[in-house]
Amino acid sequence: MKRKFLVLSATVSFLSGLAGISVVAYADSTQGTDAERSPVFGVALPHGYREWQFVSIAHEEGDKADIRVILGNDVAMKAYRNGTIPFPDGTIIARLAYKYESSARNNAVFGRAQSYIAGEPTNVQIEVKDSKRYASTGGWGYGQFENGKANPSVQLMNTCFACHTKLSPQDDFIFTKYSK
Amino acid sequence: MKRKFLVLSATVSFLSGLAGISVVAYADSTQGTDAERSPVFGVALPHGYREWQFVSIAHEEGDKADIRVILGNDVAMKAYRNGTIPFPDGTIIARLAYKYESSARNNAVFGRAQSYIAGEPTNVQIEVKDSKRYASTGGWGYGQFENGKANPSVQLMNTCFACHTKLSPQDDFIFTKYSK
Repeated sequence: MKRKFLVLSATVSFLSGLAGISVVAYADSTQGTDAERSPVFGVALPHGYREWQFVSIAHEEGDKADIRVILGNDVAMKAYRNGTIPFPDGTIIARLAYKYESSARNNAVFGRAQSYIAGEPTNVQIEVKDSKRYASTGGWGYGQFENGKANPSVQLMNTCFACHTKLSPQDDFIFTKYSK
Repeated sequence: MKRKFLVLSATVSFLSGLAGISVVAYADSTQGTDAERSPVFGVALPHGYREWQFVSIAHEEGDKADIRVILGNDVAMKAYRNGTIPFPDGTIIARLAYKYESSARNNAVFGRAQSYIAGEPTNVQIEVKDSKRYASTGGWGYGQFENGKANPSVQLMNTCFACHTKLSPQDDFIFTKYSK
């Protein structure tokens, strides 16, 4: 009987493993070597994210001083357009930030200082929805990437949900609204 | 002989007409009724532009006070990524502008006033490359759209190239650079 239980337990564990693998497959964000994944969450830079569709834009002042675009994979865009909350598993949202720079070239054309543009990329943040894997952080896993490499700071990763959790669960802990 | 010349002339005119139709077909930006087209250039809002890929972002201060994203169709994105100048015929670039708004919600989370986001859409500007049709304006045709309707102002349309022509021909009269 004890042996039977062990076999059953091993089977359940194996099936959970399989389920885990399927989650990895559809998210396309937890693939890659350990060095390419974020600490804590194991999120990798999704293939092709630069070709994803546009969600919205923002500018952050202060120590960030960036201008940023938010892109979404197909699952994210469908959910955004349908107003689906919470976002379904498989949602991936990418935030691409750039140095916030005054454009001397544009200002010369306009005849006054008014134009701010995206300079060099600063970092890319990725959030992946997997309600089971990331159950303890609202269903979201996080990663930050500089020059395509995962930022290895555990401390940084622990700030992600600590900040997002201040948002309403009715917004599924997401800052960005869809811009028509 | 005179009659033969007339037939030839009509044939050339017919062929030119056909050529004109093929230009309309690939640009997908000059279709629609007169009311849906920009004055001067006859540019219409291209189907599916909201799903196009991301080129870059900017913020304009002053009387515009907007935050804007620039998207490109497939021809535009290929040219941007390959650094192809001048942009090939069939390029369409879309500039979507939104009211520049302080985000009370984000600022509350961050604990300080730092976050500016996209509010309601203001207008969409479209520029279409057709080196023959728009030869007198650097190969570019322009249109501005509010709530999906072409702005009917001839005066406004005449400001488009008057401003873009101040840019270098080496940039093909385009403000926006590609953000990686």
